[in-house]
Amino acid sequence: MKYTLGLDYGTNSVRALIANCANGNELATFVYDYPSGHQGILLDSQDDNLARQNPLDYIEGIRVTVQESLKLARANDPTFNPADIIGIGVDTTGSSPIPVDQKNEAIAGKPEFKDNLNAQCWLWKDHTSYEEADTITRLAREHRPQYVAKCGNTYSSEWFWSKLWHCLKVSPEVFDAAYSWVELSDWIPSLLAGVNDPLLIKRGVCAAGHKAFYAEDWGGLPDTEFLAMLDPKLADLRERLYEVAYDASEPAGYLSSKWASELGLTAGIPIAIGEFDVHYGAIGSGVREGVIVKAIGTSTCDCTVVSADKEVADIPGICGIVKGAILPGYYGIEAGQSAVGDIFKWFVEVFLGESADTHEQLTREIENQLPGETGLLALDWNNGNRTILVDPRLTGLILGQTLHTTSAEVYRALIEATAFGARMIIERIREYGVKVNQIVCCGGIAEKNAMLMQIYADITGSDMCVSRSSQTCALGSAIAASVLAGSVNGGHDTLQDAQEAMTGIKDIVYTPNPENHKVYTEIFTLYRKVHDAFGGVENPELGTVMKELLAIKDRQRNAKMNNPID
Amino acid sequence: MKYTLGLDYGTNSVRALIANCANGNELATFVYDYPSGHQGILLDSQDDNLARQNPLDYIEGIRVTVQESLKLARANDPTFNPADIIGIGVDTTGSSPIPVDQKNEAIAGKPEFKDNLNAQCWLWKDHTSYEEADTITRLAREHRPQYVAKCGNTYSSEWFWSKLWHCLKVSPEVFDAAYSWVELSDWIPSLLAGVNDPLLIKRGVCAAGHKAFYAEDWGGLPDTEFLAMLDPKLADLRERLYEVAYDASEPAGYLSSKWASELGLTAGIPIAIGEFDVHYGAIGSGVREGVIVKAIGTSTCDCTVVSADKEVADIPGICGIVKGAILPGYYGIEAGQSAVGDIFKWFVEVFLGESADTHEQLTREIENQLPGETGLLALDWNNGNRTILVDPRLTGLILGQTLHTTSAEVYRALIEATAFGARMIIERIREYGVKVNQIVCCGGIAEKNAMLMQIYADITGSDMCVSRSSQTCALGSAIAASVLAGSVNGGHDTLQDAQEAMTGIKDIVYTPNPENHKVYTEIFTLYRKVHDAFGGVENPELGTVMKELLAIKDRQRNAKMNNPID
Repeated sequence: MKYTLGLDYGTNSVRALIANCANGNELATFVYDYPSGHQGILLDSQDDNLARQNPLDYIEGIRVTVQESLKLARANDPTFNPADIIGIGVDTTGSSPIPVDQKNEAIAGKPEFKDNLNAQCWLWKDHTSYEEADTITRLAREHRPQYVAKCGNTYSSEWFWSKLWHCLKVSPEVFDAAYSWVELSDWIPSLLAGVNDPLLIKRGVCAAGHKAFYAEDWGGLPDTEFLAMLDPKLADLRERLYEVAYDASEPAGYLSSKWASELGLTAGIPIAIGEFDVHYGAIGSGVREGVIVKAIGTSTCDCTVVSADKEVADIPGICGIVKGAILPGYYGIEAGQSAVGDIFKWFVEVFLGESADTHEQLTREIENQLPGETGLLALDWNNGNRTILVDPRLTGLILGQTLHTTSAEVYRALIEATAFGARMIIERIREYGVKVNQIVCCGGIAEKNAMLMQIYADITGSDMCVSRSSQTCALGSAIAASVLAGSVNGGHDTLQDAQEAMTGIKDIVYTPNPENHKVYTEIFTLYRKVHDAFGGVENPELGTVMKELLAIKDRQRNAKMNNPID
Repeated sequence: MKYTLGLDYGTNSVRALIANCANGNELATFVYDYPSGHQGILLDSQDDNLARQNPLDYIEGIRVTVQESLKLARANDPTFNPADIIGIGVDTTGSSPIPVDQKNEAIAGKPEFKDNLNAQCWLWKDHTSYEEADTITRLAREHRPQYVAKCGNTYSSEWFWSKLWHCLKVSPEVFDAAYSWVELSDWIPSLLAGVNDPLLIKRGVCAAGHKAFYAEDWGGLPDTEFLAMLDPKLADLRERLYEVAYDASEPAGYLSSKWASELGLTAGIPIAIGEFDVHYGAIGSGVREGVIVKAIGTSTCDCTVVSADKEVADIPGICGIVKGAILPGYYGIEAGQSAVGDIFKWFVEVFLGESADTHEQLTREIENQLPGETGLLALDWNNGNRTILVDPRLTGLILGQTLHTTSAEVYRALIEATAFGARMIIERIREYGVKVNQIVCCGGIAEKNAMLMQIYADITGSDMCVSRSSQTCALGSAIAASVLAGSVNGGHDTLQDAQEAMTGIKDIVYTPNPENHKVYTEIFTLYRKVHDAFGGVENPELGTVMKELLAIKDRQRNAKMNNPID
């Protein structure tokens, strides 16, 4: 038996997974919660937009998760030998850039920057740079329309250049102290490979893609003339970043002897190019043409691929269409919702008080409700809207409350809101000729929350499948590593072969109830009006929205009274 | 010392108050919670619109509250003699019509109707007849525009004819069994006066006014031709209702010997014409020209008066302009919000769990926030909108939520929503030339919630005063009774004299903070947009609302950081 190791850096913790190359089965896994900040995130009570992370937590995370998962592997299979691990893959959140010095060390490790929030990793969900994002969008639309065409015509405050520019503005001393900036997804492989010069890091096209405006078409990163329009210092930085970014067919490097001995692994095994969690998650869920992989977590990411042989139109509001970003030889198409699980978590923690069984209790109260019975309609924008409005300066909304509205009904409305948001994405992608034949979901919510999955099926009108693996991101990283190791070493020769062997879906498939889908489509029309009005798309008549919701509610309650569920 | 007795029938309980005619001081008071239903209200789990009340609870309420308050009066003042009570006044919720038989007995008391919700009192906040209200509005606008001109051009499902018609449709057996229908405010005085024929009840113009389309101008109640357009049975009913309705200068009758002996009072003392709670509450708070009295309770009612010598324009959206409805010789102007305290109560009970100190705890968390710091904006429509949209088919809305929004912030946003609703009313009244120099608030919320009062002052830009009496409705009833008794018996000769002697305001006055008022006026502009959009008034651009709220929030947080409160 040969194995590969996947390291998955999430928002609150990092996970190591040892996967069997023959069938994708998990031999062992271990999770390490980042010790710094609130649930691993450094916050600023004065600024809700700020979200940073301590880079040193990431390094400690390598040690703990790998060593502990190796112990577990031996416990689970006494014949297991760490030498059977033939490669390592890494996926992380992103865009999460880290300022580093000339030795590729995080400047956050220096005493003078230890407590400086701007010297830490700028976590994907940091929105402090929304003004910079607006300006970049404006300048790019005017001067380099091709740059923003690939990302839905709007650059995000979650991305590389917005964050660096904001740092330069608010903390020039940090910016000046940074020799280079590295995405977390590139940094971890570079550390494992013992790269101690930022210029030698092999960067992944997944993170570079639309998030750093990288494309072969225009010679890599944005030209210095454009960057100088933002700030001359950003133009100067360009040559301390990278010229070429690589897809998953290329190794990021080979395990250094220092890390090999520290972890108890074989020096020289290949390390895959780092990709964002959802991209490797898509691979781990079996993404291919016609299949959307939907990673449902704190936020949601929708990934699909289209052969690079075909023409792919720029899709307005779809924030990433990047060649090789997911599968080599394919355009990766990435969309997403800025908050999904985070909204449910927020609602339960803030209003109902955290309790292990609250979600289950709420579900019991409302799982037998018919669509529209709550009379409520919500927008899923508590963390902005990533797709299709690409606007972080949007907020949540709920309407339809009466004096009889229950907390369980609000909970259901929030779930429905995220499902309507999901439907907006699918409709937009289809509108531009991309096929969607199957939706494969992954993540804990997809596995555990059957009510949510049924609501998603009823609202989208599509079958909802669940990925066989519970750790698709780590599995996808392990798959990428298995391809670099190659079949001669017990791995695979192509990603397609590896996916065929190592991924699959669970037996349970959530199928839309046609009657529910019909009612939800009525409500979706109302969602769309409110979405378009507050999203600034157009000014629909809203004066009938509350009345129509009440009419649907009355109709559904009567329907239930006349035809009670046993 | 002479006293009058005020009986105040609220939504959940009835209160008796023994008031000193010389100074309005309260000698004793006793509250009786209606025993039936949920907090005194009969509900239907299948229909949130339904709210009924058991009429027998009202009768028991007379006995208990009067007897207990007399006991307390003796305990508080051993020289007190029940014979010193020289009159009784009654106020109630409304429009709350009760079906009665030929003997003026509630048909709900009959065995066959005991459990029939449609045979009970149709409580003011029952909204089951929204379809009938729409049709009445449509027919009146077409055939009798003068009828609806006095009530903001829209007839309400909370009112007399909507309710009777709905009863006729859904429960013809109840409608047929009812010889007549009597407003609760007319029924209680008629019982005390021993009236056992509905045709002999002296009805009050306060309840008759716009709520039953009564006006001297067109000869009293709506003509039979109009009523027949609704249903011939309603036209038939007209002659079993009343020809003339009276203002507070007329007695409803005199205490019957039966009730006098049962209660231990003097037979033959005058009973004032019943008025709605808020109208007598306005009198008990010292309403006069230029003064708006704002009764802040489960819902809110705003009352003011304009001399009947002047011309008063019909004010769109103001649901009641009725001569004599509050003070004889004045037009009574009545507006209101369908839910205020009820919204806070709903929020706390449903989301946070009921707890005695939750309101205080939430207040502590947010009382030092600056306007706009929550980033939230809410509509106060959880129970529809009474003024100025006159539309029960509207629902609540809240927007601006992020993943950091706290429950205390939502609580504050709900308070602000009700204050914005209050400002809409004041602006509309002023727009039509009615003077508003002072706002006098009454009700427990006004007395207890200083943060709310300050927010109201900051949002409306007006001084907020608080009525001296905690029981202004019962006090107003007692004042009306004192005028009927007359100065020869220890009462007063005019309502003005009685108000002068028996009412006043507390020393504390909430004055607007000019800086807060300015910021709230910015937010009010956004409130108005959302109000007009969902209220069907017009289609404003809403695409900037969330962004403007975020900009105000950022500005206010920065202001606070730069100038922290000690």
